[in-house]
Amino acid sequence: MSENRPLILVTNDDSIYSKGIKSLVEAVSSLGEVIVVAPDSPQSGMGHAVTIHGILRINEEKIFGDIKAYTTSGTPVDCVKLAIAKVLPRKPDLLVSGINHGSNSSINVIYSGTMSAAVEGAVEGIPSVGFSLLDFSADADFRAAMKIAHDVSKQILEDKGLPEGTCLNVNIPKGSPEEIKGVKICRQAKANWEDNFDHRIDPMGKPYYWMLGEFKNYDKGEDTDEFALSHQFISIVPVHYDLTAYHAISHLQQWTL
Amino acid sequence: MSENRPLILVTNDDSIYSKGIKSLVEAVSSLGEVIVVAPDSPQSGMGHAVTIHGILRINEEKIFGDIKAYTTSGTPVDCVKLAIAKVLPRKPDLLVSGINHGSNSSINVIYSGTMSAAVEGAVEGIPSVGFSLLDFSADADFRAAMKIAHDVSKQILEDKGLPEGTCLNVNIPKGSPEEIKGVKICRQAKANWEDNFDHRIDPMGKPYYWMLGEFKNYDKGEDTDEFALSHQFISIVPVHYDLTAYHAISHLQQWTL
Repeated sequence: MSENRPLILVTNDDSIYSKGIKSLVEAVSSLGEVIVVAPDSPQSGMGHAVTIHGILRINEEKIFGDIKAYTTSGTPVDCVKLAIAKVLPRKPDLLVSGINHGSNSSINVIYSGTMSAAVEGAVEGIPSVGFSLLDFSADADFRAAMKIAHDVSKQILEDKGLPEGTCLNVNIPKGSPEEIKGVKICRQAKANWEDNFDHRIDPMGKPYYWMLGEFKNYDKGEDTDEFALSHQFISIVPVHYDLTAYHAISHLQQWTL
Repeated sequence: MSENRPLILVTNDDSIYSKGIKSLVEAVSSLGEVIVVAPDSPQSGMGHAVTIHGILRINEEKIFGDIKAYTTSGTPVDCVKLAIAKVLPRKPDLLVSGINHGSNSSINVIYSGTMSAAVEGAVEGIPSVGFSLLDFSADADFRAAMKIAHDVSKQILEDKGLPEGTCLNVNIPKGSPEEIKGVKICRQAKANWEDNFDHRIDPMGKPYYWMLGEFKNYDKGEDTDEFALSHQFISIVPVHYDLTAYHAISHLQQWTL
């Protein structure tokens, strides 16, 4: 293996056994040396969680042929941290996360383990991208997602990176490649989940809850990820981790504390 | 209880049994009707994790005298969602999270369960603040933190809120109230954790890891939270959940995909 080949770290949140990560490995394997470090069990909705009060395990898994692959017992962000500190021979040239089974557009970016892995990559100075397909089914059609994953990864490797401190949130509409109308660079739509909880009684007579929710998009803008996706375009949102609300600073400076 | 009294939701990530949340309840109890919904076990580092593949429990806890208090089996964000959907009589006028045992300044905002609870509040349209004391000890001196928690909460309730879509990340230096020099409105410093992992062998001969890390502040700015805290000032950073890196959009629009 030439030392000049780009080193690509692949991770996800649906676990190493999902179709999505297999598709992502296939999509980028021609672009460099691929190493997979992914959770050993589903970690959807883990956000930017890290394991600070428990132990972590790493195990090698021979499931992608010649490509080196490891599971960890941790979250997606744990996977990125373990990969950099303990698995990879050097800092990777690219981190790709996904392909997630389900949308990570708009507000979902903050709950998503897929995107938190990409954000962690950006924090560590690695050009990073999360890919998500708007199809939850285990055997979804990943062809369009694989094509954009390949094309975006190639572009980043040829460009030598992304603007400093940013990663990308790429969402792909459900359907066949022929149904995709194109690619749009977008902002995150203003949306949230209207939560509800299913109330049940366990066999011991005690109550418990399952989280439910309805996605509400309040954003009428035509430059949002939700608008692009609803018109069968792939959405790409540049994402950063400086959460400072700069526009609110002057308001707060009027306070007397 | 008058219906005109503000309704205040208190939560945290160190669990309902920590000194920090007890201090926060005391700090804000004179300002309105307080209801506590907090994790039943420590949830530090849980970021914006939500429980979507498991069940959740709610239990009433009589540990704050007349103040209604509930534990949940979930993460800090689960607590906020459960509180709004299942516990509170109406949307609260204020959400306060903490007082965290340990810093949530700069990049820690994305790993912090304390701050993720506040961000979730903002997503739900509730004026929300996370408070964190730069002292990990279980019996830390919370007096300065209690004073700023009271003062900020009072200001928000009198102001009828915060700028739309923002919450506050308030960090308090370690020490007595007399050692605090004042309050600064700041931006999030550019910093990260240089991770390492302690490698050990379990009794069965198998390896495992504990996460370690060294905090690295790369930011020389004098308008950052790290600068304020290192000079014994309380830092307040307005935080939002629109992660769009607007400055990167024009760069990406030059790509041909």
